[in-house]
Amino acid sequence: MTATSAAPLTPAVRVQPGTPFRLADIDPANTEPFPLKKKLDKRLEELREQLSDYQENLYAEHRQSLLLVFQAIDTGGKDGTIRNLLTGVNPAGVEVTSFKTPSSEELNHDFLWRIHPHTPGRGHIGVFNRSHYEDVLVTRVHGLIEPHTWQQRYQDITNFEQLLTRNGTRVLKFFLHISKDEQARRLQARLDNPKKRWKFEPGDLVERKLWDAYQVAFQEALAATATPECPWYVIPANNKRARDLAIAEIVVAALADMNPQPPAATFDVAAQVIE
Amino acid sequence: MTATSAAPLTPAVRVQPGTPFRLADIDPANTEPFPLKKKLDKRLEELREQLSDYQENLYAEHRQSLLLVFQAIDTGGKDGTIRNLLTGVNPAGVEVTSFKTPSSEELNHDFLWRIHPHTPGRGHIGVFNRSHYEDVLVTRVHGLIEPHTWQQRYQDITNFEQLLTRNGTRVLKFFLHISKDEQARRLQARLDNPKKRWKFEPGDLVERKLWDAYQVAFQEALAATATPECPWYVIPANNKRARDLAIAEIVVAALADMNPQPPAATFDVAAQVIE
Repeated sequence: MTATSAAPLTPAVRVQPGTPFRLADIDPANTEPFPLKKKLDKRLEELREQLSDYQENLYAEHRQSLLLVFQAIDTGGKDGTIRNLLTGVNPAGVEVTSFKTPSSEELNHDFLWRIHPHTPGRGHIGVFNRSHYEDVLVTRVHGLIEPHTWQQRYQDITNFEQLLTRNGTRVLKFFLHISKDEQARRLQARLDNPKKRWKFEPGDLVERKLWDAYQVAFQEALAATATPECPWYVIPANNKRARDLAIAEIVVAALADMNPQPPAATFDVAAQVIE
Repeated sequence: MTATSAAPLTPAVRVQPGTPFRLADIDPANTEPFPLKKKLDKRLEELREQLSDYQENLYAEHRQSLLLVFQAIDTGGKDGTIRNLLTGVNPAGVEVTSFKTPSSEELNHDFLWRIHPHTPGRGHIGVFNRSHYEDVLVTRVHGLIEPHTWQQRYQDITNFEQLLTRNGTRVLKFFLHISKDEQARRLQARLDNPKKRWKFEPGDLVERKLWDAYQVAFQEALAATATPECPWYVIPANNKRARDLAIAEIVVAALADMNPQPPAATFDVAAQVIE
């Protein structure tokens, strides 16, 4: 395995830029080195509070922004992860965009045309539930594009994320990694539970048959588009609590590194008399 | 001079990718090798008809698109050029976008964020009156950005235009090259003619004082962003008729090369009985 553990200490694996690796070598059920459940909940609560504080400073500073990209196989847990990470953060500073099947108008343009307008402005956190990566995953697995096209798109993606980075946007990308057995359990739960049934569609079973092709497409795309500035993290995601904590650790560490600061007063504070 | 004449035969000069050149070496008043006025008008009329036909085929084919970028010093003739080139073409297939001073919302994002949504979709002709190049010109001349920023932006621009090209968009870029004396005449005409006075603003005289800095910024930007796929043309533009013809020749030659074709019938034409 050529990917390395992320700092801070989590079960997450940071993909090494340009270096092939195998998803099969990363255990989706791993929760090491996380401690037991009780301590884990407490830590997650701490991180959520820190995240909320950082968001406020990011907004006040109005200089940098943060983009979180979430990709996964069906049932991988994107919706739940985003909810658990960001509930409690001021929604005025967060925009979540869920990218669906492209419209005919979107298909009339390059694959980044529909993405670009949703990138976060200064002071904001942008969250992509699916993203521009769909165009090197779904399209590839279904044979809609040729190898030279997805190779070009890897480069286009890297260039695009570099543009964002140069403009002060920190880009973090997360692949929620579940096992095929875990997907079976989750699909069955969606069928069995009337409240969850709206998330199921028969097409999910067609996609499930393409499991191996998706694993290959993911691991190649991650290796090709992980850069020192815009890392990919593989998050073992069978265990939802460990998944959420792993992501929260990485996001908070990135914000700590960005170190957003409210601007200093441009006036003499002491001289302001409020009558 | 390291730029070469464009084929077809026009006074236009195609900038050589990555090769420095001096705008001062290109005569803004040149109309060679164009013939006399009368023949010139006739040729322009022919080209307009061809352009109209090509646009219809481009629209029917719904596969490729064309992006024309116009940049110039103030009074360089962008508005007139666009009007003279495209009047007579079906406006349903053409979108002209005039980029003004960025809004505060636009400034909250990377410099291509406001540009990308206006790139032409399949079957369409997009025309930029000013463009993403403003962000390596005005900002540079007014000292708002550092050299490393405009160097990065040259690369971002090249990457962006490559993305468009890969998606089937032909990108042609025109710098309308006038002399400083010609600008003086045109500014005076705007002041003297009440019908044209709305196009004048006192700030134009401030920009005129920066003439030399603009010439340097233009020639460096053109050399850095001319590529074999996305060429820059310097158009001698003191003479408006020669300017229009030079551009029309290049646009029509590009469309001829793109060779858009209406799709073949997907049904048996002879078998269709209209009662």
